[in-house]
Amino acid sequence: MSISQKIKIATSSSSMIRKMFEEGAILKQKFGADKVYDFSLGNPNVDPPKDFEEELLKIAREVIPYKHGYMPNAGYPETRQAIATKINRTSGLNLSGDHIIMSCGAGGALNVILKALLDPEDEVILPVPFFMEYTPYVENYRGVVRRVKTRDDFSLNVAAMEAAVNEKTKALIINSPNNPTGKVYSKENIADLSLMLEKKSAELKRTIYLISDEPYREIVYDNVDVPNILAAYQNSIIAYSYSKTLSLPGERIGYIAVNPEIEETAELIGALILCTRISGFVNAPALMQRIVARLQDTTVEVDVYKRKRDLLCDGLAEAGYKFEKPQGAFYLFPRSPIPDDAAFVQMLLKKNILVVPGSAFGSPGYFRIAYCVDDATIINSLAGFAEAIKECR
Amino acid sequence: MSISQKIKIATSSSSMIRKMFEEGAILKQKFGADKVYDFSLGNPNVDPPKDFEEELLKIAREVIPYKHGYMPNAGYPETRQAIATKINRTSGLNLSGDHIIMSCGAGGALNVILKALLDPEDEVILPVPFFMEYTPYVENYRGVVRRVKTRDDFSLNVAAMEAAVNEKTKALIINSPNNPTGKVYSKENIADLSLMLEKKSAELKRTIYLISDEPYREIVYDNVDVPNILAAYQNSIIAYSYSKTLSLPGERIGYIAVNPEIEETAELIGALILCTRISGFVNAPALMQRIVARLQDTTVEVDVYKRKRDLLCDGLAEAGYKFEKPQGAFYLFPRSPIPDDAAFVQMLLKKNILVVPGSAFGSPGYFRIAYCVDDATIINSLAGFAEAIKECR
Repeated sequence: MSISQKIKIATSSSSMIRKMFEEGAILKQKFGADKVYDFSLGNPNVDPPKDFEEELLKIAREVIPYKHGYMPNAGYPETRQAIATKINRTSGLNLSGDHIIMSCGAGGALNVILKALLDPEDEVILPVPFFMEYTPYVENYRGVVRRVKTRDDFSLNVAAMEAAVNEKTKALIINSPNNPTGKVYSKENIADLSLMLEKKSAELKRTIYLISDEPYREIVYDNVDVPNILAAYQNSIIAYSYSKTLSLPGERIGYIAVNPEIEETAELIGALILCTRISGFVNAPALMQRIVARLQDTTVEVDVYKRKRDLLCDGLAEAGYKFEKPQGAFYLFPRSPIPDDAAFVQMLLKKNILVVPGSAFGSPGYFRIAYCVDDATIINSLAGFAEAIKECR
Repeated sequence: MSISQKIKIATSSSSMIRKMFEEGAILKQKFGADKVYDFSLGNPNVDPPKDFEEELLKIAREVIPYKHGYMPNAGYPETRQAIATKINRTSGLNLSGDHIIMSCGAGGALNVILKALLDPEDEVILPVPFFMEYTPYVENYRGVVRRVKTRDDFSLNVAAMEAAVNEKTKALIINSPNNPTGKVYSKENIADLSLMLEKKSAELKRTIYLISDEPYREIVYDNVDVPNILAAYQNSIIAYSYSKTLSLPGERIGYIAVNPEIEETAELIGALILCTRISGFVNAPALMQRIVARLQDTTVEVDVYKRKRDLLCDGLAEAGYKFEKPQGAFYLFPRSPIPDDAAFVQMLLKKNILVVPGSAFGSPGYFRIAYCVDDATIINSLAGFAEAIKECR
């Protein structure tokens, strides 16, 4: 009897991404970093916008009393107000600063939300494929994950989700633009989902929360529209992160936005603030809170990612890969040319290409390419991708 | 059925400190901030050291690839190495960077440690009085808190702690310099505790972890020595924060230090890293990690706090208050002149003085004064303190 049994088991079944990471490190040492094409991690290679660096310098020079001190657990009122104003401007909604709780990125936000919502054995529905961290996040609070496959084009299969709703369902987590598929759910798809949730909530006399994980909200291509969840469904909560919008995933800054029309608003907001405190987050990092307040209209250059997407999609299509062209985020989720995605990932590894098997996202038969890498990595990897698919024929 | 039942109950029993905070806000609006003596919160009023502000500016100017990106979940290797080196230099121990895991302050560190260690119903022993957040921290992971009173001088009552150890005991949390008492446990006191834990571990064939929460390690007076826990006991883990050492509690930066001799070292470190990730912390804020790496020998001016302690202690002693003079931290924990500490806190409130009842720390009959405030607040409050005790006679 020493460390937690549950954690002991979780630690020993080390994650597939981590495995890729370790194999990648060995390859890089052997062949040199520029000869290894590492698409395994969603760590943006694009620098933060110039405005960010300028604000950081400015704030570093400013004299502000209690500049790095505690603020209310929910965050600085000015920051929360700036975010509410931005959301209202782009959505026509009417949030106040009180509806915003600053968080340590979207990962922190999701944990705080799930802690505030879940009773033991409550079920959380996840459309598959999904970001694999959702499973431990739900299980942290003794919730149970229910997986529901998306359609072939990665849109939500609302009928299948409806069939999965029962008297234990507490919430759904959706993620659009999606990791790992790059899918953006359409307005119609979201409207169908909302209607279904309203119907089932009434039927079961139970609040069902829609949690929307939106770290990629601003990373979209070809003028695709990302529907606002708060406008679409009453009992909705957004988990947002500046990790990708401002390219600063290591700084751990994001927020929770609560629908002003949500049931028991004050009680829920109180619970979210309490959970921020007692989980040990206490508050989101102070300096980053100050900076993002001033950068509500700043994003990284999305065109850079679009160019990478096109380079990759064109190259892989030519080689014969099958995939849905991503509408956002910086992931491509092609079909594996052979059914065994783990085996195909090993074949790519022999070409010094690192990707993650679809099984890691609940979808065997696919693999994920994180294309937030420099253009040369994409261009120089294409020959290897082409050889690997040829070897499958 | 909407938000979590457990969290609903926790939210409604709003904390005493928060209550003081709200009453304080009303008073400040009514009388003006300078006429209200707010000793309720441990939010340091001392500015961060000049070196911190200089390093922040320097780093803000530096061009570093992936400067704000993800790093390994445990933190930057350079930062972890710098901390290990500092601990080794001051303790004669032999930690490597691998024994350090960067955290979101001590609150984040404690949550990660408890998540990694606790199985449901495991017991955690807390010497009373104690920082009240330990209770939710332990209960987050379904642990059970066992409270054991300290001696009258707030030193550890090792015999009483021994009586509390049983086959469910997984850990003890100690906090020295202590919040709320300012006590620093002596080398002898810690040696007795270690001996007892070794004896009980052998007897019960069970690992018992000693978790040392040390955010106030550098805030000590009169050359008092803070014994190193890692040198004293094998199965020990430190939760550290730069919140007080560098006066930046809002920035959420600290670390976990694992005893290199601890049982199952690699497994425990793996579990701590996993828990950092799946709890949603992911990693400690990147920029602050870079800064603290360069500031291992920098602390705020402790003499400033010493002056405040002396001002307060001299004034209160003259008024007839009974207390143990703090050896560290920035809290004073006097006896309430009447048994009902909540009632006495209300009497002080009528003098526009805000303090926290000892009941909030598990010790009715006391109250806590956080003296990390400007000197004027201390000086101008003394008349009110004197009047209040007079009214009790």
